[in-house]
Amino acid sequence: MYQNQIIIDGLQYCNWTRDYFITLRDSGITAVHVTLAYHEDARQTLSLFGQWNRLFEQNSDVIIPVDGVSDIALAKASGRVGIIFGAQNCSPIDDEIDLVEVMRKQGLLIMQLTYNNQSLLATGCYERVDSGVTRFGKQVIKEMNRVGMIIDMSHSAERSTLDTIEISTRPICISHANPTFAHDALRNKSNDVLKALGGTGGLLGFSLYPFHLPNGSQCQLSDFCEMVARTADLIGVEHLAIGSDLCLNQPQSVLEWMRNGRWSKSMDYGEGSSSNSGWPDALPWFDAKNGMKNIYQGLLEHGFAQEEVNQIIGGNWFNFLELSLKK
Amino acid sequence: MYQNQIIIDGLQYCNWTRDYFITLRDSGITAVHVTLAYHEDARQTLSLFGQWNRLFEQNSDVIIPVDGVSDIALAKASGRVGIIFGAQNCSPIDDEIDLVEVMRKQGLLIMQLTYNNQSLLATGCYERVDSGVTRFGKQVIKEMNRVGMIIDMSHSAERSTLDTIEISTRPICISHANPTFAHDALRNKSNDVLKALGGTGGLLGFSLYPFHLPNGSQCQLSDFCEMVARTADLIGVEHLAIGSDLCLNQPQSVLEWMRNGRWSKSMDYGEGSSSNSGWPDALPWFDAKNGMKNIYQGLLEHGFAQEEVNQIIGGNWFNFLELSLKK
Repeated sequence: MYQNQIIIDGLQYCNWTRDYFITLRDSGITAVHVTLAYHEDARQTLSLFGQWNRLFEQNSDVIIPVDGVSDIALAKASGRVGIIFGAQNCSPIDDEIDLVEVMRKQGLLIMQLTYNNQSLLATGCYERVDSGVTRFGKQVIKEMNRVGMIIDMSHSAERSTLDTIEISTRPICISHANPTFAHDALRNKSNDVLKALGGTGGLLGFSLYPFHLPNGSQCQLSDFCEMVARTADLIGVEHLAIGSDLCLNQPQSVLEWMRNGRWSKSMDYGEGSSSNSGWPDALPWFDAKNGMKNIYQGLLEHGFAQEEVNQIIGGNWFNFLELSLKK
Repeated sequence: MYQNQIIIDGLQYCNWTRDYFITLRDSGITAVHVTLAYHEDARQTLSLFGQWNRLFEQNSDVIIPVDGVSDIALAKASGRVGIIFGAQNCSPIDDEIDLVEVMRKQGLLIMQLTYNNQSLLATGCYERVDSGVTRFGKQVIKEMNRVGMIIDMSHSAERSTLDTIEISTRPICISHANPTFAHDALRNKSNDVLKALGGTGGLLGFSLYPFHLPNGSQCQLSDFCEMVARTADLIGVEHLAIGSDLCLNQPQSVLEWMRNGRWSKSMDYGEGSSSNSGWPDALPWFDAKNGMKNIYQGLLEHGFAQEEVNQIIGGNWFNFLELSLKK
């Protein structure tokens, strides 16, 4: 039964209000990977932690912070939603290796090495040339491995991702992206990357963001399940999960911050375009209330075994977190 | 026996090297309150935590970080020195109430509301007018109480200190200062302050910094013990401890940073003067190796009971920390 499972959404960036926390809880989600920062530097990231501390204080009956899988088990047992913090960029560590451990201690469990652009660590998926992991990047990967901070390459370029999988002594994740074979987009991942990821114990979270899906907002649940099935054939079901990339109730200004940060004076449209600059239309079968449950049912109907569906819907994330957060 | 006791030095700012950690351990000290920051802002404080994380990594056989008294017990049991972090100013929280919890989570257990000057929270002991606790100060006291961060008024002015004792719902400390009756200095504390402190369960750590002592560097151990005895008569031995203010192996530049931070273009000499601008001469009976042991012996010889000496030398700090760090 859906409601008995550990349900984990491996990426959301919604407008975090009490109402939305209650929606999350009522949807049956046990834990969610929340994007804390996109372009915020170390100092600004402290303020973001501070704002979340207030949310925890004010909503302790609905949400709890996750520092390890025992907190997810506690969330499940107490009918609350565990909040797993990640950054979609390496901006929270500035240019300072020691801030990896500082941010980990503050509760940042997951960090992307890049967000679309070249970073100090590696190359993002929209750059013309992918030069791979940098000198600083190698040091940071080693340090993230040491302190138990999870490496996420969702927005990184191919060679940088393959480099990282090779350098890292721990499995990494691609928390929210889809296979290129299902939809050819710069943000999606080649079979080479997927095989290297799975071959080292890594995790892929399938994205529900229309720009990452075949036929965009018209993608059907059965198409989505077929993509999952083909990826399971390629790398094994134990490496598959969900990272919906759900961004609900956010104004256009947030989309522009995600896409432009402080780095561009002219508007960058990311996966959109000047004639299609807004949030994409939501998938009718993936809303906040029933999205994960619909996927759960869809996968069962598509022919996945119960145990496989349990893994994809949260069990794999739980096991991956358990292994990855150990020091 | 000295070596069986919990020995806590309630304030040091030495040059932190492996050699010095070994000296600390060999001196029998179980835990030491280390000044992490004087004037460093939030961002700089993160770097200081980062530097200390490296020290913990490189010297895990000699020192351990303290987040609660169980870590002090562990330090004792494993023959290591517990490091208790404090800030001598409120600069680590910038102007942001939420940073109290953020810094507490990072490991800042103690914070002074002021360092000599007016701060955003209260008035320092060298200001001409002491206007008491500010609007922001009241909020920060409440927040420190909530998250279990200890308030330290060592460098604060009289009214601000009395205000704080009244506002705070938890006992506060004056980690390193002496009674004015023993030596009249702006940094020392009046009987009114001492009585208010003791009357609310607070703690006074006696300073070994010569500028705070009768006869300065010529102060004898017996004079020191007499000061302790008179203070015990005034407020009770259960409120007394040691906060040596030991600053060993630091260059003049560190003294100037402590005194001037970024706030003065002309040199401020603190407790010194233009003709006496350096570190004061150390007390011959209070060095890093035998200082705490000499006090232990001195107090016994002065007529304190064994149990009283155990309290003063560390037991009171331990109990105060146990009570104060609970959330």
